[in-house]
Amino acid sequence: MKIRIAIAGYGNLGRGVENAVSAADDCELTALFTRRDPKSITTRTGIPVYAMEDAEKMKDQIDVMILCGGSANDLPVQTPEFAKHFNVVDSFDTHARIPEHFAAVDAASRQAKKVSMISVGWDPGMFSLNRCYGQAILPNGKDYTFWGRGVSQGHSDAIRRIPGVKDAKQYTIPVESALESVRAGENPELSTREKHTRECFVVAEEGADLAAIEKAIVTMPNYFSDYDTTVHFITEEELKREHSGIPHGGMVFRCGNTGADNENRHIIEYRLQLDSNPEFTASVLTAYARAVYRLAKEGQYGCKTVLDIAPAYLHPQTPEELRKNLL
Amino acid sequence: MKIRIAIAGYGNLGRGVENAVSAADDCELTALFTRRDPKSITTRTGIPVYAMEDAEKMKDQIDVMILCGGSANDLPVQTPEFAKHFNVVDSFDTHARIPEHFAAVDAASRQAKKVSMISVGWDPGMFSLNRCYGQAILPNGKDYTFWGRGVSQGHSDAIRRIPGVKDAKQYTIPVESALESVRAGENPELSTREKHTRECFVVAEEGADLAAIEKAIVTMPNYFSDYDTTVHFITEEELKREHSGIPHGGMVFRCGNTGADNENRHIIEYRLQLDSNPEFTASVLTAYARAVYRLAKEGQYGCKTVLDIAPAYLHPQTPEELRKNLL
Repeated sequence: MKIRIAIAGYGNLGRGVENAVSAADDCELTALFTRRDPKSITTRTGIPVYAMEDAEKMKDQIDVMILCGGSANDLPVQTPEFAKHFNVVDSFDTHARIPEHFAAVDAASRQAKKVSMISVGWDPGMFSLNRCYGQAILPNGKDYTFWGRGVSQGHSDAIRRIPGVKDAKQYTIPVESALESVRAGENPELSTREKHTRECFVVAEEGADLAAIEKAIVTMPNYFSDYDTTVHFITEEELKREHSGIPHGGMVFRCGNTGADNENRHIIEYRLQLDSNPEFTASVLTAYARAVYRLAKEGQYGCKTVLDIAPAYLHPQTPEELRKNLL
Repeated sequence: MKIRIAIAGYGNLGRGVENAVSAADDCELTALFTRRDPKSITTRTGIPVYAMEDAEKMKDQIDVMILCGGSANDLPVQTPEFAKHFNVVDSFDTHARIPEHFAAVDAASRQAKKVSMISVGWDPGMFSLNRCYGQAILPNGKDYTFWGRGVSQGHSDAIRRIPGVKDAKQYTIPVESALESVRAGENPELSTREKHTRECFVVAEEGADLAAIEKAIVTMPNYFSDYDTTVHFITEEELKREHSGIPHGGMVFRCGNTGADNENRHIIEYRLQLDSNPEFTASVLTAYARAVYRLAKEGQYGCKTVLDIAPAYLHPQTPEELRKNLL
């Protein structure tokens, strides 16, 4: 019997989960839940679409619910709510608010004797567990995280709010010389400006003051003023043609020393190059949905994060097969 | 109270564990056990040295025993034997014999109500778990493992057995163009020769036939004949000066596709650059000794591998601290 998975929310992430679950031989899609009019949605794979508020009625047909809403407004409410009736997985990514989100979801899951997982994805997610492994193995060391080359949705939105801007896409780019220094084991101290640059592709309204837009971008506090930022004005056609993808990625490093006199240097690098940020996040969510299903069968109720899950729980093979084939 | 760790065996790996445990604030070294005359050994940090056969008498003073013998002859006997009285960790690395080693150690541990972990290190070990995570997240994909640049002990030993060879060191080197192709997402099919080259530094006996030695190396089946191999004859002094280290490392890749038409490509790379292979392995063993201690306190008896251990068990911080600081 396959693991019966449902999706709540059908944006980029929800569509990514639809693809990821389709690619997992031991999983099947049961239902999609939406806040829009269900009749207005046709899913790519033909999974039936229901109104969000009808989900509870179907709880016996669903092993794991993957929540595909946004971290700012949707998940803080949705995840604890769904955790009352379902095993759930979300990709909550507001780092500073993880402890309170965890507490709310954990309480709901324990009460309902269900399993939940929050903050599943690549950062938080795969990057977090690489920080954990790296720090545990090399206690005498230093962490580095770089992001990109990839599209930052938040920075793209910030540009779009500037008067005279019709559309925009912002790429975060790690500085090559900084990466080289870290990989060479130089343990550099890096300022914000030394780690990443920002490249912006902007479509201006007709007659807009381009110099004013550029100045508004590069001097914008928090978003751009601490970075070397490049602004390119392009046509709407070029933006659509060249910048419609949502690539992302990055690297987590742990650089540490061992030995009687710390004479030996070790560098651990975990690197992601992703053509589609939401599809990769969806693939991580789907692998962890398998873990949630297994933990629920074991009765390990409550909220978990990627740090609490043994790798074998993610893989479709049995522990015996994994020891034989993969260890 | 600190985790009380003992070491069995004082070769390169045992000395590495001595350093790694010293660097872990929540661990302390209780004892070193050896098959040599204990009086003949002075440990760097002053830990007391005992005969291997006296270990059992000290079982109440030791939380975890880290076994630092070799995989060929020592560990298949030692690990099941020590598992009768101790929580143990070993770095058994004969991939093909892992299932039988697991079965023997598991039986001993369950009977004794102890926890054991086998095959802890970087391959098997960290590389294995990256294969597991990669396959689980990107089921539609391909694995690549490269080793080096690093010293292969087995290949160095094979050269030393050739008549006329006084000493030798062999480096395994990944082929740069193969790495570039994998990182570029080209999903190449790579033969053995296309993945790695081998570089040998050989000290010949006086008057030895160098051409014969070189031919014996490059044509040696299994070890060298499937590779492009370079042989350098150097002096004993140069070997000592330039090649006394034991660096190693490598990369595990998972290259996979997602999307309705598999149109999006994702590349996960885990890379190690290690100045000292035994010291890094020792650092991994020590982190997993912490996990073994915690599992033993929870009563999770039996044999485990890195695939069975949630990342949080390795880290000195509590799950709450990890969620706040690291996730």
